[in-house]
Amino acid sequence: MTDIQIAQQAAPLPIGDIAAACGIDPQYLEQYGRYKAKIDYRLLRDRADRPDGKLILVTAITPTPAGEGKTTTTVGLTDGLRKIGKNAVAALREPSLGPVFGVKGGAAGGGYAQVIPMEDINLHFTGDFHAIGAANNLLAALLDNHIQQGNALGIDCKQIVWKRCVDMNDRQLRHVIDGLGGRMQGVPREDGFDITVASEVMAVLCLASDIPDLKARLGRMIVAYTFDGRPVTAHDLKAEGAMTALLKDALKPNLVQTLEHSPALIHGGPFANIAHGCNSVTATRMALKLGDYAVTEAGFAADLGAEKFFDIKCRLSGLRPSAVVIVATVRALKYHGGVPKAELNRENLSALEKGLPNLLHHVGTIRNTFHLPCVVAINAFPTDTAEELRLVQERCRELGVNAVLSEVWAKGGEGGRDLAREVVRLCDQPRLEEFTFAYPDNTSLIYKLNSIVGRVYGGSQAVLTPAAQKQLKRLTELGFGDLPVCMAKTQYSLSDDPALPGAPRDFTVTVRSLKVSAGAGFIVAYTGDIMTMPGLPRVPAAENIDVDENGVITGLF
Amino acid sequence: MTDIQIAQQAAPLPIGDIAAACGIDPQYLEQYGRYKAKIDYRLLRDRADRPDGKLILVTAITPTPAGEGKTTTTVGLTDGLRKIGKNAVAALREPSLGPVFGVKGGAAGGGYAQVIPMEDINLHFTGDFHAIGAANNLLAALLDNHIQQGNALGIDCKQIVWKRCVDMNDRQLRHVIDGLGGRMQGVPREDGFDITVASEVMAVLCLASDIPDLKARLGRMIVAYTFDGRPVTAHDLKAEGAMTALLKDALKPNLVQTLEHSPALIHGGPFANIAHGCNSVTATRMALKLGDYAVTEAGFAADLGAEKFFDIKCRLSGLRPSAVVIVATVRALKYHGGVPKAELNRENLSALEKGLPNLLHHVGTIRNTFHLPCVVAINAFPTDTAEELRLVQERCRELGVNAVLSEVWAKGGEGGRDLAREVVRLCDQPRLEEFTFAYPDNTSLIYKLNSIVGRVYGGSQAVLTPAAQKQLKRLTELGFGDLPVCMAKTQYSLSDDPALPGAPRDFTVTVRSLKVSAGAGFIVAYTGDIMTMPGLPRVPAAENIDVDENGVITGLF
Repeated sequence: MTDIQIAQQAAPLPIGDIAAACGIDPQYLEQYGRYKAKIDYRLLRDRADRPDGKLILVTAITPTPAGEGKTTTTVGLTDGLRKIGKNAVAALREPSLGPVFGVKGGAAGGGYAQVIPMEDINLHFTGDFHAIGAANNLLAALLDNHIQQGNALGIDCKQIVWKRCVDMNDRQLRHVIDGLGGRMQGVPREDGFDITVASEVMAVLCLASDIPDLKARLGRMIVAYTFDGRPVTAHDLKAEGAMTALLKDALKPNLVQTLEHSPALIHGGPFANIAHGCNSVTATRMALKLGDYAVTEAGFAADLGAEKFFDIKCRLSGLRPSAVVIVATVRALKYHGGVPKAELNRENLSALEKGLPNLLHHVGTIRNTFHLPCVVAINAFPTDTAEELRLVQERCRELGVNAVLSEVWAKGGEGGRDLAREVVRLCDQPRLEEFTFAYPDNTSLIYKLNSIVGRVYGGSQAVLTPAAQKQLKRLTELGFGDLPVCMAKTQYSLSDDPALPGAPRDFTVTVRSLKVSAGAGFIVAYTGDIMTMPGLPRVPAAENIDVDENGVITGLF
Repeated sequence: MTDIQIAQQAAPLPIGDIAAACGIDPQYLEQYGRYKAKIDYRLLRDRADRPDGKLILVTAITPTPAGEGKTTTTVGLTDGLRKIGKNAVAALREPSLGPVFGVKGGAAGGGYAQVIPMEDINLHFTGDFHAIGAANNLLAALLDNHIQQGNALGIDCKQIVWKRCVDMNDRQLRHVIDGLGGRMQGVPREDGFDITVASEVMAVLCLASDIPDLKARLGRMIVAYTFDGRPVTAHDLKAEGAMTALLKDALKPNLVQTLEHSPALIHGGPFANIAHGCNSVTATRMALKLGDYAVTEAGFAADLGAEKFFDIKCRLSGLRPSAVVIVATVRALKYHGGVPKAELNRENLSALEKGLPNLLHHVGTIRNTFHLPCVVAINAFPTDTAEELRLVQERCRELGVNAVLSEVWAKGGEGGRDLAREVVRLCDQPRLEEFTFAYPDNTSLIYKLNSIVGRVYGGSQAVLTPAAQKQLKRLTELGFGDLPVCMAKTQYSLSDDPALPGAPRDFTVTVRSLKVSAGAGFIVAYTGDIMTMPGLPRVPAAENIDVDENGVITGLF
């Protein structure tokens, strides 16, 4: 059965029942249809004295075309924890609409470890991303209108850094010239569109603690520079009030359920390269108030997702993780070991041995850099052999880490019992070391970059191009030197070269440019061309999506 | 008090109570927060045998800067009908997001005749317009992707007629060149954006009877022409299934309440120039199944809104109106009589006499062309004098029509009792004539154009430019000659010259181009430059909108 068929066979409970079961009073619940609800953030204020649960981060090895299954594991672990009697709540990212119609499809877990209603979650859900797009585009319209109406702020059209966005894979909009058509039709200039999830508004929403913080962050966002080099912010355009009005409901976390009726908060989904790639701080906080275990995920592999989860999300919010799950598949490790995609179904211990260093590197980072207990979740495939599994477990054990078979895709929470037990054990064991960031606050941007490259990627150092050095100087002068760094690096390698799988050593990482996301509160370091507007493939997934007369969707995967 | 202050002081009932009071079983209700809900269209199927209520159309005189108050009157009449013991339901258009931040502000009625929650209704509401935008932009992305991937259909880039859209007033996007940046970044071409409400998807959604009809209409939409002149449709791009998936919830009418807890269905809002300007057929049908009186509105004045309501919406759906309300204000009639805006507060009977022909013309059209009973609703202003009101009533009575003072803005339903009683009387009186379209089916496009100009506008005939004549020939060859006509004409005059107020005579209307909206099912006749992407003013309303820490919005009007 396909994911959507499994999802459509499920008998979801009314969302009010799910809320009641995890202790959410109806006064906090705003239903969106029968199976979705927003939770008022007043719940966080009213529950401030309730102790937080344990925060579990699910991350993964370096992604390959063979797939890992991070969301599936997050959902299955939540169900598994409940199977063994623990009060667990998942906190996940919302899928982006664009990729649903492209190659990637949806992102609501898979097999018997899914969140439902998967069609809604993958399409408009509760409208959060549309609200973000509208706020982003209102700011853009106000910016160009300001210029058209006389440009009192002295904005340099060649230094506009704010782009419009659509939640669609639309390469045609990557590079445009707009404002054409004459004097009354705007000001001609080079421009471009991003996909909505790449908007700084998304990162801001995911890091904001409440409405005043959201508004202040939106106001700080830089949209352009003046002819004499001063930054122009959303506040200068008097935009943040109206933008916050557009976002006031989007700031509220969304509650849904897993196939097994476990509560799942799904909220926000910033890019994991130019932004930090985690669900919202409000959703994670809420999961910690509702559950004794809050299971959350971060984008891409541990070098990007987990590093940003710790160094950006945890640092800026005060959240502190208790344990980490690193998801791997035998197939993906063999791919890292050089096996082509077509031959991944055959046992190949020597390729596996060759690919294992990638997993072991991520394990080492979590343990030695961030000082967190971790477990490796081997997301099971039918083609995995006993010898292959044994080899992964043996190599992990040599590092003092258990590798547990996770069969949540095939069996749901039942297949996640072992993983759940190991996670509970990690949380219960006495901690010998304190959680540590990859770099302390109050260090220079260079120090931060070198720390990430050296202590997280396994490289030697960061090398800045002359352009990046100039930007570093300027950003420091503008007062942004104290912000944490958000690395925009390829997800396909620990290095900045996507062709280098496994666990490369002795490499440098070239930082080509540095930009500030002043509202989100980090400096983005670009190590290569980062695509912020995907395209559609030759045969888009959209061609196979359909709806019957009763509104039942097919072809979504 | 401002509209938003009045709205925020109201104590709305839970939307489930509103639904229950008008007999909607909970199984059909999908809540969106506490005070909004979508109604499943299965209700229409399950209630097929319940006789329909009476359909009341609210239209207006030719708009002036003095304002008329169509939505206010529609809401107040609904409340007034309920005050006199009638089961009335309103069916309204959803406001567009863009104008909320520009000059116009919101569109949820005014004073004590509003629908609430007005902030939600004016901002994202239940996400319908975002869904329409996403469906529109998915089609655009699929179209350009098709060309990028080899252009198997042979689409001529210079004959692409499908635009992207945003729900924002953004003049910078009116004329753009996109697809720049090299071989992998799309195909460079001239392009442009419309505001979402101008998308054909909006018109299609508002005319579709159910999901199969919606899908079929979407599939028929023409997006481009090939090098050899054949139309390329959304179906050719295999787009209609995924578009329908995006729109399946947007097709469900939204239920809210008036300040006095009357039920109001708010659903859809196509442009009233390049489209037909009425709320959805599904919402109107539902209002007729739920109420004994369904009160609805149409865009602009009777020449555009009412004509299209009858000749497009009623013709294509089978809906049949029982009576018409024509809204006028003394101030607006004086403006038509030549009084400048600053002097409208002073009594001026001769200017009023000079402006009255505009009202009387619309009354005449409703009675003599469409053969419907009508009442004039004088939307009261404190500056109206007794003599002015008497003059309007006298002139209307000469045409056999009553003019009733409507004080719903100041008094809510209480101020609409007289209007409600007159509407009931019109519906109850024996009908001497049958409702008639402005032109019958199976007439030529020229005949239809001349009928509208002659029988609705009071002009002599339509004159086609050579370009329009060529297009007429081509559209007829393509098989679209049988479709009704949708006039894209200035709303500021009965003629095609916006500078001609009152009731001009002996004018011709120049049709400059003809385009088919093959999915909606009409031919758009352009009589001038029609703006389908508004701009922001020097001081956008957005600058004054704000939200406090509890999510309470201010500055929205």
